[in-house]
Amino acid sequence: MGKVITSASASLDGFVAHENNDPGRLFDWYEAGDVEVVTASEPAAFHLTRTSADYWQSWVGDVGCLVVGRLLFDITDGWQGEHPMGVPFVVLTHEVPTEWAHAHTGNAHFVTEGIEAAIARAQEIAGDRVVGVAAGTIAGQALAAGLVDEVAIDLVPVVLGTGHRYFEGVDPAAVRLGDPTVVIQSARVTHMVFPVER
Amino acid sequence: MGKVITSASASLDGFVAHENNDPGRLFDWYEAGDVEVVTASEPAAFHLTRTSADYWQSWVGDVGCLVVGRLLFDITDGWQGEHPMGVPFVVLTHEVPTEWAHAHTGNAHFVTEGIEAAIARAQEIAGDRVVGVAAGTIAGQALAAGLVDEVAIDLVPVVLGTGHRYFEGVDPAAVRLGDPTVVIQSARVTHMVFPVER
Repeated sequence: MGKVITSASASLDGFVAHENNDPGRLFDWYEAGDVEVVTASEPAAFHLTRTSADYWQSWVGDVGCLVVGRLLFDITDGWQGEHPMGVPFVVLTHEVPTEWAHAHTGNAHFVTEGIEAAIARAQEIAGDRVVGVAAGTIAGQALAAGLVDEVAIDLVPVVLGTGHRYFEGVDPAAVRLGDPTVVIQSARVTHMVFPVER
Repeated sequence: MGKVITSASASLDGFVAHENNDPGRLFDWYEAGDVEVVTASEPAAFHLTRTSADYWQSWVGDVGCLVVGRLLFDITDGWQGEHPMGVPFVVLTHEVPTEWAHAHTGNAHFVTEGIEAAIARAQEIAGDRVVGVAAGTIAGQALAAGLVDEVAIDLVPVVLGTGHRYFEGVDPAAVRLGDPTVVIQSARVTHMVFPVER
């Protein structure tokens, strides 16, 4: 099975969005360069530095399935069934949005039996490729359950003060990280990947 | 005048210590190598990697005076008058600890007129050298007052969840940081320095 990797842009104080889900300046790096990256759905493209584009393409090339929470699903309206990365995604939810599921085909899968089932379903879909886990509540649950291999942080030089945390609801003592295996400095972001120590 | 630089080890979620002031594993990097660094007071020495030792020596070589808060002063008992870095320090406090001041000579200075006066006093002492500001409340006040030139973070791959923040009590919107000018990866720490945008 492929690795399970949590991933998100985060502020220097560990937040992935404001309380109202506004990312503030956390996504500035998506428009910090002139390399156009075309996506599978809205936004149709963004513009990275060469360094960030190479990192992004490598990440997208590795990922076979994503796991997201119901909040992100609702905010994005499930990307209308097509995630910008062009990969299938598993939504962990208490209740399957039946109407939405009937109206959209394809790449969305729903799991109601908890985080372990969601990761397992994503791993079935991903095969040997990476399962990407959205930061926040879902990443927190996956970390707490010992299901995460690596923590990827796109570290952005901003301070949010409050908001949604990358490590939401995790017992910090349960998160043991090794030294970063990736530290790539780019414009408005430093891409970092930390292995989870078991 | 020299630059004003805040500095501290911080977790991935932006904390510089637990609520009870215990640094947890934030200081693991001080014993992560075999290069002995001798200090001016307790602890008499620590042991860094070559990479961290070079960074540390460069930092210590630049600093002409430190500004610390009363909490840190009390926790350390004012380092008995001699900071490990061997430099003078200004303590921002509501009340000068007269008894302590009489019992210890030398390197401690007390300022009661607020953060601007404390930084100004430190700059007088430092001359062209750097004024180092301890993270936490003092760094927050200095940032909020627009007195900080650079934010140095020794980023440690741990999560604290709660505790004392690097950017304590700062309006986050007031903190505008540029891309890091320093990103040095070492064992149990990544040394980063961010310029403050004015």
